[in-house]
Amino acid sequence: MRVVVDAFGGDNAPFEIIKGAYLAHKDFKTEITLSGDKEVIEKIIAENNFCFDDSLLIVDTKDVISMHDDPTSILKAHINSSMGLAFKELIEERADAFVSAGSTGAIVVGGTLLVKRIKGIKRPALGSMLPSPDGKYFLMDMGANSDCRPEMLLQFAIMADAYLKQVEGIENPKIGLLNIGTEETKGDQLHIEAYNLLKNAPINFVGNVESREMPKGVCDAVITDGFSGNIALKLIEGTSMTLLKLIKNIFYKNIKNKLAALMLKKDVYSLKSLMDSSEIGGAPLLGVKKPVIKAHGSSDAKAIKNAIKQAITFTENKVVDLIAENLE
Amino acid sequence: MRVVVDAFGGDNAPFEIIKGAYLAHKDFKTEITLSGDKEVIEKIIAENNFCFDDSLLIVDTKDVISMHDDPTSILKAHINSSMGLAFKELIEERADAFVSAGSTGAIVVGGTLLVKRIKGIKRPALGSMLPSPDGKYFLMDMGANSDCRPEMLLQFAIMADAYLKQVEGIENPKIGLLNIGTEETKGDQLHIEAYNLLKNAPINFVGNVESREMPKGVCDAVITDGFSGNIALKLIEGTSMTLLKLIKNIFYKNIKNKLAALMLKKDVYSLKSLMDSSEIGGAPLLGVKKPVIKAHGSSDAKAIKNAIKQAITFTENKVVDLIAENLE
Repeated sequence: MRVVVDAFGGDNAPFEIIKGAYLAHKDFKTEITLSGDKEVIEKIIAENNFCFDDSLLIVDTKDVISMHDDPTSILKAHINSSMGLAFKELIEERADAFVSAGSTGAIVVGGTLLVKRIKGIKRPALGSMLPSPDGKYFLMDMGANSDCRPEMLLQFAIMADAYLKQVEGIENPKIGLLNIGTEETKGDQLHIEAYNLLKNAPINFVGNVESREMPKGVCDAVITDGFSGNIALKLIEGTSMTLLKLIKNIFYKNIKNKLAALMLKKDVYSLKSLMDSSEIGGAPLLGVKKPVIKAHGSSDAKAIKNAIKQAITFTENKVVDLIAENLE
Repeated sequence: MRVVVDAFGGDNAPFEIIKGAYLAHKDFKTEITLSGDKEVIEKIIAENNFCFDDSLLIVDTKDVISMHDDPTSILKAHINSSMGLAFKELIEERADAFVSAGSTGAIVVGGTLLVKRIKGIKRPALGSMLPSPDGKYFLMDMGANSDCRPEMLLQFAIMADAYLKQVEGIENPKIGLLNIGTEETKGDQLHIEAYNLLKNAPINFVGNVESREMPKGVCDAVITDGFSGNIALKLIEGTSMTLLKLIKNIFYKNIKNKLAALMLKKDVYSLKSLMDSSEIGGAPLLGVKKPVIKAHGSSDAKAIKNAIKQAITFTENKVVDLIAENLE
């Protein structure tokens, strides 16, 4: 099993990415290919004694596609960037799976048009595991498709079902539709029509889910268009951060509070780690012909290691094949 | 100034509603009309010594429109419900403003088709003040219109602008568009087109706002379609509740934690009250010819009192007139 990792994608690239790849190699014995400036990569590896047991490959390029570049430039102007060459390793079968913490738009465009769609898939979509007090749940699409049609939401549900079965080992995943009310007739035209398709699909469809219930983990997958999904994803993050900051302010307010905070330290820390997306891994781009995992832009080494682990499970359990089968 | 209050709308009706109306009368000298079962209302008033100084009027009906009734039944089957008769008091000018904690759908339908739209308004919309660490911000539409067109979002912005100036006393409200990225070209077709209309509108448009930034209070009003707005509103609620519950679990975990929690009690309580929507009042239905305020379904007496206060300010400061002027 060889995973190609875009060493220059993400806010903390290249150091945290390379360190994460090293940790994944050490813990899971995965063979790693790193793409990016070879000189810099080799320097970081040498300085930190990251040992890859001779299995490491490096594809050398100085070009990087940034968050500010047009995502479609991955097809031409930046086709030889660290991300572009990582895609090439995947497509030309020198690697089994792809991980990048770089531009989401470029990963979606490259995945769709370079790696290409599974036959029958209208639009690939990004899914993401989110933390909840009683486990975790899968949100999809989290932003690859701003404008959706009902049949796209149906396909997202079928893909999420396959992913949860194969990667998360959930036998009969409960799949809900994000909506503004629980009744069948609620929502805009898109969601009313999607409901009708989903209730006849060969999945365990549990109906509409209101966003208020979502963080409680009431189902295994919440299906949504990429616009609402992206709003939801970032709002959970924003609300949690705002609240935790307010609590932190209380803890530091005076000596009495600081003392109380000290007594709670361990438990509050475990709460923070529950909300921490780096524990959970990356977002799979489902619907393309090979395993493509988008790690969070702010990924640290641990998050990259977990995204690589996810890529391995994804590949070993043949998620792509199952999606193709289920579509038929 | 007379406010008609639907005494039988909301989860805590009629007691908390009547108590809230009494508190508003006591503190603001507002004249109150209550709609609903006269016998029950009079019994509650007598038993609790709620004194309305002879100014109280009651419009008697035993019918109530519930959350489960079709919202359009307010026009016919439930036109003589407590909400229906409250609308009648407003329309026939026996009251200056309307407050109900009942079915949102019925309030939107009744407001739109009984009270009627301001000339030129395509669709009325619900706005709501939400708490943020540094103050509060206005979210609109929070759910009256699932399917929107770009011109509707433009009108929402113009109405929010008038409301914030007149009711909140904000001189030049900063108005943002909820979107999945800050760049002008981000979002689905609806939001891209809305952006173009908003940037040329006679308001202080500050561009796209990502949901992650929203809870920080980066602008005074966040404009959105009713689908995304409702998802956002309920997700903030759901995420906050989930987090606060996790923190509560930590506080009760063992004796050491209970002691620490006791030391923090006052500050944590003030945090909870910051997040508490009952402090903030109700959601105005903007775009209709008279002041209509929707209080939260779970309103207690304090929330109803605040919604009535809001109705008074709304009426005194002639928000309806300003919206009509600004539209031209």
